[in-house]
Amino acid sequence: MTELKIEAALVAAENDKRRAALKADYHALGEQLSRRGIDIDAVKRKVAAYGVAVPSWGVGTGGTRFARYPGKGEPRNIFDKLEDCAVIQQLTRATPTVSLHIPWDKVADLGALKQRGEALGLGFDAMNSNTFQDQPGQMHSYKYGSLSNADAATRAQAVEHNIECIEIGEKLGSKALTVWIGDGSNFPGQVNFTKAFERYLDSMKAVYARLPDDWRIFSEHKMFEPAFYSTVVQDWGTNLLIAQELGPKAFCLVDLGHHAPNTNIEMIVARLIQFGKLGGFHFNDSKYGDDDLDTGSIDPYRLFLVFNELVDAETRAAAGFDPAHMLDQSHNVTDPIESLMISATEVSRAYAQALLVDRAALAGYQHGNDALMGSETLKAAFRTDVEPILAMARLENGGAISPVSCFRASGYRAKVAAERPAVTGSGGGIV
Amino acid sequence: MTELKIEAALVAAENDKRRAALKADYHALGEQLSRRGIDIDAVKRKVAAYGVAVPSWGVGTGGTRFARYPGKGEPRNIFDKLEDCAVIQQLTRATPTVSLHIPWDKVADLGALKQRGEALGLGFDAMNSNTFQDQPGQMHSYKYGSLSNADAATRAQAVEHNIECIEIGEKLGSKALTVWIGDGSNFPGQVNFTKAFERYLDSMKAVYARLPDDWRIFSEHKMFEPAFYSTVVQDWGTNLLIAQELGPKAFCLVDLGHHAPNTNIEMIVARLIQFGKLGGFHFNDSKYGDDDLDTGSIDPYRLFLVFNELVDAETRAAAGFDPAHMLDQSHNVTDPIESLMISATEVSRAYAQALLVDRAALAGYQHGNDALMGSETLKAAFRTDVEPILAMARLENGGAISPVSCFRASGYRAKVAAERPAVTGSGGGIV
Amino acid sequence: MTELKIEAALVAAENDKRRAALKADYHALGEQLSRRGIDIDAVKRKVAAYGVAVPSWGVGTGGTRFARYPGKGEPRNIFDKLEDCAVIQQLTRATPTVSLHIPWDKVADLGALKQRGEALGLGFDAMNSNTFQDQPGQMHSYKYGSLSNADAATRAQAVEHNIECIEIGEKLGSKALTVWIGDGSNFPGQVNFTKAFERYLDSMKAVYARLPDDWRIFSEHKMFEPAFYSTVVQDWGTNLLIAQELGPKAFCLVDLGHHAPNTNIEMIVARLIQFGKLGGFHFNDSKYGDDDLDTGSIDPYRLFLVFNELVDAETRAAAGFDPAHMLDQSHNVTDPIESLMISATEVSRAYAQALLVDRAALAGYQHGNDALMGSETLKAAFRTDVEPILAMARLENGGAISPVSCFRASGYRAKVAAERPAVTGSGGGIV
Amino acid sequence: MTELKIEAALVAAENDKRRAALKADYHALGEQLSRRGIDIDAVKRKVAAYGVAVPSWGVGTGGTRFARYPGKGEPRNIFDKLEDCAVIQQLTRATPTVSLHIPWDKVADLGALKQRGEALGLGFDAMNSNTFQDQPGQMHSYKYGSLSNADAATRAQAVEHNIECIEIGEKLGSKALTVWIGDGSNFPGQVNFTKAFERYLDSMKAVYARLPDDWRIFSEHKMFEPAFYSTVVQDWGTNLLIAQELGPKAFCLVDLGHHAPNTNIEMIVARLIQFGKLGGFHFNDSKYGDDDLDTGSIDPYRLFLVFNELVDAETRAAAGFDPAHMLDQSHNVTDPIESLMISATEVSRAYAQALLVDRAALAGYQHGNDALMGSETLKAAFRTDVEPILAMARLENGGAISPVSCFRASGYRAKVAAERPAVTGSGGGIV
Repeated sequence: MTELKIEAALVAAENDKRRAALKADYHALGEQLSRRGIDIDAVKRKVAAYGVAVPSWGVGTGGTRFARYPGKGEPRNIFDKLEDCAVIQQLTRATPTVSLHIPWDKVADLGALKQRGEALGLGFDAMNSNTFQDQPGQMHSYKYGSLSNADAATRAQAVEHNIECIEIGEKLGSKALTVWIGDGSNFPGQVNFTKAFERYLDSMKAVYARLPDDWRIFSEHKMFEPAFYSTVVQDWGTNLLIAQELGPKAFCLVDLGHHAPNTNIEMIVARLIQFGKLGGFHFNDSKYGDDDLDTGSIDPYRLFLVFNELVDAETRAAAGFDPAHMLDQSHNVTDPIESLMISATEVSRAYAQALLVDRAALAGYQHGNDALMGSETLKAAFRTDVEPILAMARLENGGAISPVSCFRASGYRAKVAAERPAVTGSGGGIV
Repeated sequence: MTELKIEAALVAAENDKRRAALKADYHALGEQLSRRGIDIDAVKRKVAAYGVAVPSWGVGTGGTRFARYPGKGEPRNIFDKLEDCAVIQQLTRATPTVSLHIPWDKVADLGALKQRGEALGLGFDAMNSNTFQDQPGQMHSYKYGSLSNADAATRAQAVEHNIECIEIGEKLGSKALTVWIGDGSNFPGQVNFTKAFERYLDSMKAVYARLPDDWRIFSEHKMFEPAFYSTVVQDWGTNLLIAQELGPKAFCLVDLGHHAPNTNIEMIVARLIQFGKLGGFHFNDSKYGDDDLDTGSIDPYRLFLVFNELVDAETRAAAGFDPAHMLDQSHNVTDPIESLMISATEVSRAYAQALLVDRAALAGYQHGNDALMGSETLKAAFRTDVEPILAMARLENGGAISPVSCFRASGYRAKVAAERPAVTGSGGGIV
Repeated sequence: MTELKIEAALVAAENDKRRAALKADYHALGEQLSRRGIDIDAVKRKVAAYGVAVPSWGVGTGGTRFARYPGKGEPRNIFDKLEDCAVIQQLTRATPTVSLHIPWDKVADLGALKQRGEALGLGFDAMNSNTFQDQPGQMHSYKYGSLSNADAATRAQAVEHNIECIEIGEKLGSKALTVWIGDGSNFPGQVNFTKAFERYLDSMKAVYARLPDDWRIFSEHKMFEPAFYSTVVQDWGTNLLIAQELGPKAFCLVDLGHHAPNTNIEMIVARLIQFGKLGGFHFNDSKYGDDDLDTGSIDPYRLFLVFNELVDAETRAAAGFDPAHMLDQSHNVTDPIESLMISATEVSRAYAQALLVDRAALAGYQHGNDALMGSETLKAAFRTDVEPILAMARLENGGAISPVSCFRASGYRAKVAAERPAVTGSGGGIV
Repeated sequence: MTELKIEAALVAAENDKRRAALKADYHALGEQLSRRGIDIDAVKRKVAAYGVAVPSWGVGTGGTRFARYPGKGEPRNIFDKLEDCAVIQQLTRATPTVSLHIPWDKVADLGALKQRGEALGLGFDAMNSNTFQDQPGQMHSYKYGSLSNADAATRAQAVEHNIECIEIGEKLGSKALTVWIGDGSNFPGQVNFTKAFERYLDSMKAVYARLPDDWRIFSEHKMFEPAFYSTVVQDWGTNLLIAQELGPKAFCLVDLGHHAPNTNIEMIVARLIQFGKLGGFHFNDSKYGDDDLDTGSIDPYRLFLVFNELVDAETRAAAGFDPAHMLDQSHNVTDPIESLMISATEVSRAYAQALLVDRAALAGYQHGNDALMGSETLKAAFRTDVEPILAMARLENGGAISPVSCFRASGYRAKVAAERPAVTGSGGGIV
């Protein structure tokens, strides 16, 4: 029996308030979709089976280099984080797994951690290593890089850390390692691009050599920040080279906020799928840089277009297509639990909308160069209000029709605020 | 009696195919909106009363500096263009006026032109001058600028041209002049920024002096193209200075595609409203630069956020708020009539969605710093599928439930293709 | 007698090593400039008289939201910072003043602080307020804004803080207040743009009312960060409105890294000069966003083009032209003292290069639309290696021919590292 | 004997005016470089041996989609163009080859064309195909794409055209084919990214199959324009995949203006070198998009940083390193001959500056994480005024110390203006 952090009775009572309206909306939408040749229940079943991982660090309040404004009841450790993640999963039924960050989530007793996850109904998604910060007592500093550092001992330390992440993950049931590094430079001339990348590849090969057979390794590209002139893994071109150099278990991870202005991200997704190297996603939204805003809050059509590629690949059973889905956001001005619930919903929404695309018609328009109708076909799917499908999927899975309302009604935040001491200080925030 | 370019019987027959489904969808949406405290008919009435101007040049096929690929049945002159515009208005009932470009649309008999517009049920919106091209027989070249040219005679010629545009517009019933110039530079050092802007302001003051009392003048900013290092009216800051320097009849025109990457355009709109200087819009969409893509085709949420500001201003009856709305797009790969119909619909859609925003709740969330619910309030309005409202407004106004289907069924394009000789050549296209 | 932090004998010895080569280079350059009609000594005198302020926070090691990697011997307080600033001034003779940040630099005994500055030969430049962070014990949080906060008490607190900064500055001999706020939003709908700006203007008017007659107030625009959807003072257009609304003592401050991608910054500078509202600069360089990299390290020609506008205004004695010059950088991977010395030199370099522009010839080319020669005229000035002029100015002013070599030879960093305890921790860094 | 378009006596007379000053500057610079351990004559020899190809279309006046303002004496055909190119080569001695564009430069008698090139001292660089425009009488239109068109016959036509370019090139002594296409889409949904790229690869494989053994094929990526939503070869990631898929004779061509805003281009260059796939360059400069401005006119340090990578690769004899160098610019407001002469000089300048980098010191700083001195090492090379080296290399090779002055003194433009009829019309321009 999964331990529920929000009382089932409260969820039920909240759902009762909205059930009739939901049924009416679901029925009306079903009628409309039926006219379009779509079985609403089939879509609902796919949505119900879909899930996105929550990052353990996402349930804390984020910040910027200027300040971090702590929220109430912030989790003190991975066990607190798991409880918050369990709330998200209980109400949305769309976030069955948690992705850990080492050493932030390191504990002595991994068995207890795994057990706690199981009790809360949570699995463990990809492991995340951290060589973009120095930890107390750490021998070699990452100030000038980690896996690509000019110093061999520093690189070895970073490699070891990644291997440790694999070892922890093995005990928790994880099947993937995500590697994002901040390595790069702030000045032309600071780093030799070629040598740095050679060192990076060497280090990654050492990590790869230790990867279990049934694991995957995801490298993540990012245009800039924390390095402001050059970044070792700066774009998908470099990321692709990495995956090619490492081997069949290596894949590229796409964070939606890590690209140059104006970049057509859905096209990068298509290319990586085509060449069998799409590892997965860090979902979020952005307007300027790696803003780590809530998924779908700025440009929901872009999110839909990414999912349009994913559903296209799923539909044609593209070879090697099995991307991992994770949220990765910084919640600076909202309750992290609320933001993650809404964001998980937005990912499901984009998936549901993409399922509505009339792919046969689309292929016809594309073949006939009917650009206008190609566009209209996507937009018809996007502008369909699929909220009734999402809500019905949640309801039938035991979640909440309106997760945020339910969460607010539950008093969970006040309860944990009373239990968890306030974080003081207002230094820069890390997400 | 308005002359109809598409047979009424055909429109009726097309509508008959879709009427029952529309009624069902409209009814279901009405129920849902009613639960949200919104009267669907009230929204429909506002949408029905809303219109956006069509640019005369928009009904021709556009192009790029690399090539222009002509379409079939392209209009040969302003009279052909008016006919195409009439089709758009007939089917969408959302484009009651046409905006002319001089000298492209110059004719000897303005009375005949006005009469033709009236016969087709079309009014004349803002006049557009053209000092970004040289015309055959023109005395002074605009190669190095027009209103800001270092040469006084060239500036005088450009001023005269703008005055001529006013004079033509007066005879047609227009009430505004839109001034967009390509002046700028391709090299640091080519132009003295300050002197060029002084000259521009002097020229514009001469035009302004001739502006009738009940007219407005709109200046339009643009970051780059056709000048690639500096542009005289490069952004809304400079545009604001122009409107301030000229006087109370001078306003700023916002083309959605004329900004730097990542710019928050809706915020510029809000600022211009706040200071009484928003003149109006050139609607289109873009991903990279002044792409002149179909409105709402790339980032529909951005379009909605602009309309959110407009409806907010309308709701609170902001002082001096009376923006002009016009489409301005380059149709390179679609039938221009189809693109303009869809685009007019997209503008109406954004307007309808913005009307659905629960402004009282929004104000409360904003006052209480509930960022998440502020966001959700906008998104709830945006994700409502308002197509039934738009279609019902069209239907009841005598238009088509599905303008593109109706247009295709009408055979209009084939008919005009037979009448209008094919344009040959494949030079760069101008929009 | 100014207290020197680096022994004069060491400086002299270092200079001796380089004096002969400098003389030869200076002589050769003088010959070449003479052929171009330029008196090298006149340029040198202008450069020698030029100075740029150092920000007190600049002498600490910066960081990002991901990590801060402390350096050795970081200053513990404003007195330590002054000593580091004195080193910069001693060796470069280009940084005679320091700009303070309150409350970071707040001390009980302002008289002692002023005296310490005088002893070290340093004056006090513009004061900087801080309402983008919460301070321990602060009544109202700035999590949701400061001068534009929806809550009146929070705004009043922020106004009071700015007034306190003025009061402190008055005691130190400062003559300006720089106001940069992080206010904005992370979600569409979080904030009402218009109301927020109204509140901001009201708050600023309250600060302005307290401004001494011989002071100026500088508002600083920034596109994004720490707010990632909208920023209250997002660009120079809004900044201009602020300066206009406040009055004749209000001016716009331009930070080179605070603009949208591709923005022509030198043109903004020209516009602000033309309309009498250029307050000054925060110099730095950037490639992606507000990277706060060392001035001139990424795009030195852009820096030159800004100075080209400044020298142009200086030459024609533009009305009201009196900009403040300050460095504002985040030194994450270098010794801050070294970076600031180099950066001060780069600013002087751009100034010297701009002084070499043949302005009469340039005006002629511009009038005659000779774009190529206009460009060549600027480039001829830019590509002149003015290092001998800068070095000679330093030498003759008592500074170092090679400030970095001299600094490294001095052992200053090791000395202060021994005195100042290492900062521990690796949280996000703030600059 | 090479036929000279500018009288040798005039060149000599012009050089006489500047020889003494050049000698003095060269001597002084030699002294300074000698102190830095650099042999100026060795640098001069490398510069003298360096050349960049001129595009045949570059000697015509370019334009934008809005207008093209013809210049005087524009070349009417490839023979006129060769004459203009010969002038550039005569005066700069840095542009020994011309790159042709088919069908623009197609002639019946290729033997005569080759002979004419030889007479003028010009060789033939890479061939350029054109499938981004329709030609009169062409069977299938490229409106919806060429090599990636959904229609097999259209693709076959585009393949045939590329093969024809190879065949022409073989007769002229060319050894490479550059393929740039405008294929892409203007709407989400218009094109299936994956299928379009599959078709593109198939087409290119057909072209590759016909490539002579001693030829190379260069594919060129570009972010956008003429397609404004997606472009088939949108970035170096896709370009790399193309080169990998095609085989060992396939390489990536980098046009400096074809990237997303803020992109670190020099890093892309480094990656392509590292993986043996750098084919060459289209040099130009840009501020906003594919502005095609004169090389080095906007950001000369960026150009230097690219050459820093090239010289680094040259120095360490990187495997497979043999990039082709070509200018590719649109001259809208200058005399194309003058712009190309200056641009050729700028490319040589960047090369000379990069040769001055103290690579041993740089490697040491990089190994020791001395970011500041790494930066300073590059900047010391960049800020060296190498004009005396360039001018001396030109002089000694028989060119002009000041090519533009010499060209203006020659009256060449007036002469050809009298011979070549003025181009009329002001349509959009194509480059």
